[in-house]
Amino acid sequence: MQISVEAKPAAPAAYDARKKRLVQTIDRLYHRDARAPLQKMLARVHPADMAAILDDLPPEHVVDVFHLISDTAQAAEVFSQLSPDIRSRVTRESPVEKLASILQHLAPDDLTDLIGEFPEEQREQLMALLDRDSKDEIESLLQYAPDSAGGIMTTDFFSLPHRLTVEQAIESIRSREDVEMVFYLYLTDEDGRLVGVISLRQLLLNRPQTTLHSIMNRRVLKVTTDADQTTVATLVDKYRLLAIPVVDEENVLVGMITVDDVIDVIEEETTRDMLKMAGTNESETLTHSAFKIATIRLPWLLAAFIGGLAATGVIGQYEAILGEVLVLSAFLPVIMGMAGNVGVQSATVAVRGLATGAIDTRHTLPLVLKELRVGLLLGGFYGVILGTYGYLMHSSMSLGKVVGLTILGNMTGAALLAVLLPMIFQRLKVDPAVATGPFVTTAIDILGVLNYFVIASWIYNL
Amino acid sequence: MQISVEAKPAAPAAYDARKKRLVQTIDRLYHRDARAPLQKMLARVHPADMAAILDDLPPEHVVDVFHLISDTAQAAEVFSQLSPDIRSRVTRESPVEKLASILQHLAPDDLTDLIGEFPEEQREQLMALLDRDSKDEIESLLQYAPDSAGGIMTTDFFSLPHRLTVEQAIESIRSREDVEMVFYLYLTDEDGRLVGVISLRQLLLNRPQTTLHSIMNRRVLKVTTDADQTTVATLVDKYRLLAIPVVDEENVLVGMITVDDVIDVIEEETTRDMLKMAGTNESETLTHSAFKIATIRLPWLLAAFIGGLAATGVIGQYEAILGEVLVLSAFLPVIMGMAGNVGVQSATVAVRGLATGAIDTRHTLPLVLKELRVGLLLGGFYGVILGTYGYLMHSSMSLGKVVGLTILGNMTGAALLAVLLPMIFQRLKVDPAVATGPFVTTAIDILGVLNYFVIASWIYNL
Repeated sequence: MQISVEAKPAAPAAYDARKKRLVQTIDRLYHRDARAPLQKMLARVHPADMAAILDDLPPEHVVDVFHLISDTAQAAEVFSQLSPDIRSRVTRESPVEKLASILQHLAPDDLTDLIGEFPEEQREQLMALLDRDSKDEIESLLQYAPDSAGGIMTTDFFSLPHRLTVEQAIESIRSREDVEMVFYLYLTDEDGRLVGVISLRQLLLNRPQTTLHSIMNRRVLKVTTDADQTTVATLVDKYRLLAIPVVDEENVLVGMITVDDVIDVIEEETTRDMLKMAGTNESETLTHSAFKIATIRLPWLLAAFIGGLAATGVIGQYEAILGEVLVLSAFLPVIMGMAGNVGVQSATVAVRGLATGAIDTRHTLPLVLKELRVGLLLGGFYGVILGTYGYLMHSSMSLGKVVGLTILGNMTGAALLAVLLPMIFQRLKVDPAVATGPFVTTAIDILGVLNYFVIASWIYNL
Repeated sequence: MQISVEAKPAAPAAYDARKKRLVQTIDRLYHRDARAPLQKMLARVHPADMAAILDDLPPEHVVDVFHLISDTAQAAEVFSQLSPDIRSRVTRESPVEKLASILQHLAPDDLTDLIGEFPEEQREQLMALLDRDSKDEIESLLQYAPDSAGGIMTTDFFSLPHRLTVEQAIESIRSREDVEMVFYLYLTDEDGRLVGVISLRQLLLNRPQTTLHSIMNRRVLKVTTDADQTTVATLVDKYRLLAIPVVDEENVLVGMITVDDVIDVIEEETTRDMLKMAGTNESETLTHSAFKIATIRLPWLLAAFIGGLAATGVIGQYEAILGEVLVLSAFLPVIMGMAGNVGVQSATVAVRGLATGAIDTRHTLPLVLKELRVGLLLGGFYGVILGTYGYLMHSSMSLGKVVGLTILGNMTGAALLAVLLPMIFQRLKVDPAVATGPFVTTAIDILGVLNYFVIASWIYNL
């Protein structure tokens, strides 16, 4: 990460126009082979903007232009923000020594993540070229699960012995320009154990001779390396922190996680939830192979398929009544569709509420009762309309009753089931997002079809 | 907001146990009417924890316990973090003078948001009791749209004249303990216009007599008051900022937005997207009235309803073939369900990708081609299985062909349509999240049913 006040990004309104202009100018300079002015120009562009610009250049020039960024630290930042496509192109087409000299500048956590994406062979070559320190840091980071605090922390943080005075602390900060932006100063004892925290502002507010020890806050909110990244995100969000320290099981300070990494975790977890709700998973966003994507979606669809076959079986049992009242099949799509849609509405409200903490399982009963009422109201409304439609279009009171009552029952049932399942899943510590996937939809389909024919048999006396 | 290093929250592992213990102790002290020890205890609890504890206390004691928090600034923080239920209870059952004295301590942006939730009459009483400054700030904030930079910014920020020296700046910071945590120092000219920015760390790195003017960064990333909150979030995320300044049309600095508020925006926007995808909207999470929720969901369901009726009409046209081959209706649920599910998968991947920026509309063609291949693979797989099942169970080659081909066609078509519509919506600047709601599902249903009967008529020669 690079939280930095020195950033020189474009103003948002002018952003697109400026980017387009830059892309054109860079392309022109490149074609004229005007290296010196091009390098000078590239040096002034913010890494985040540069990454976006490279994305827009003709693909065959990207690697050349990238290597014209003369400041290797800047090139490292650009590299880490490239889109996966462009990044793998640069990786493929660059000499490994050059890559190593650039990547050296990245924070260890970013470097570890990137190294993981490299093809096996190149990864080993790269590791061999990195300096001892970087290698050690990467190897120590690789031992943590990617979704744990250890997996997302950076080891490039700033800490001070708690026995220092304010004056010594300020001197220390002055002498270290290379570490991540400091806002909290973590304080450690002789064994490296985290004992307190102080803000940069508190340094300014206290007298030079005061010891940090006497002004520090001793109750530091911290996480251990094995904490789940969602826990970390929840804590940083809840207590509105800018960073959180990471300690090992002996309370030794080993890293820190900054708020920008937490934003990434929140977005990643949401994407995961949404894809899970749709019956797929996030690995499909990492691949371009249609075959691989199909194999990821296939098992989720299997639940729906088996459910569909079960519904087929149910209808098969009622073939007699279908033969008598052929029009019943015409109403199958609207009856199934309405229940499915109201189910998705209820389930989404419940799953998202559980994820953001707006709902918790202690409120299951009032929530279920609320959805019961909502389902009855919606089912009643559409039941009356569909019933009237059935009666008028087919001049059959019985048909009107069957379709009206079915919609009422199915929509109410779907709303109930769709809020109940996520709550139960949450209590059982199963991810509630799964509950809105093909699993619920399928349950609603089968029960809905069954209900339809039970009501039809009853009304038609068959 | 309160980004603060002085927070004293509990460690996450011990969190639940500690909270439970606190709830029990507070409840016991309350019952013994031990006010003094209770107040002493409450003073030590972090506002975020206190809000969670109040949520767990017996509802009839909540208001009393809340008013035992003797530090009004702490009480204000707790109040702003209460769940909506508890907050409205406290609001209802507290004397308005007491509320005013508590709310006075909140940051103007938080206060404005909270005041908006009050019942009309109480709001006016409260406004009358607030001091002149707070009232002016609230009135100026109320003029901005709630989703704009002006609507989410705080006016309680710290800025300095750019002509000051480093020494004067540090003196200034020492004298102001009340403003929001400072990490960036925004610098203004004589007319209050934003001219530069400097970090607290840079103050430490420079000599006391240096003027801020000579060391400041002049290219400040900023937004205007009317910027959309999503734009703000994107900028803060992209450039990894801790805060962003807000200016008016004359470049006068009027507020700032901190990263914790950006996290709230990101979560809010995601919730909005997810609810829109499900065919409802975020106002349903703000109400307890089942009737109101039903009216919010009703129009979204109408699209599905009309689509369902259209499918009914389509099937009605093919009643002759249904009469001949009764078993065709038994396969309707599985055929509709499979297409709907694969459509939700494709649409979710596209909509989420567009929202996070992982996908953009320039890549429409490769994406559509990829979904085409995925659809063909999945449709082919389930087509073969369903075709075989149809053939074996009903000893009819024709039935096998019809259901197999239909699944192949419908799943492929659904995958295509579901990726194409969000991309088109995005280009037309319509929110692509709408595209996965009942709208797409319904289109897939109608086209799917039509395709089924066209294939059936062709294979059965009817």
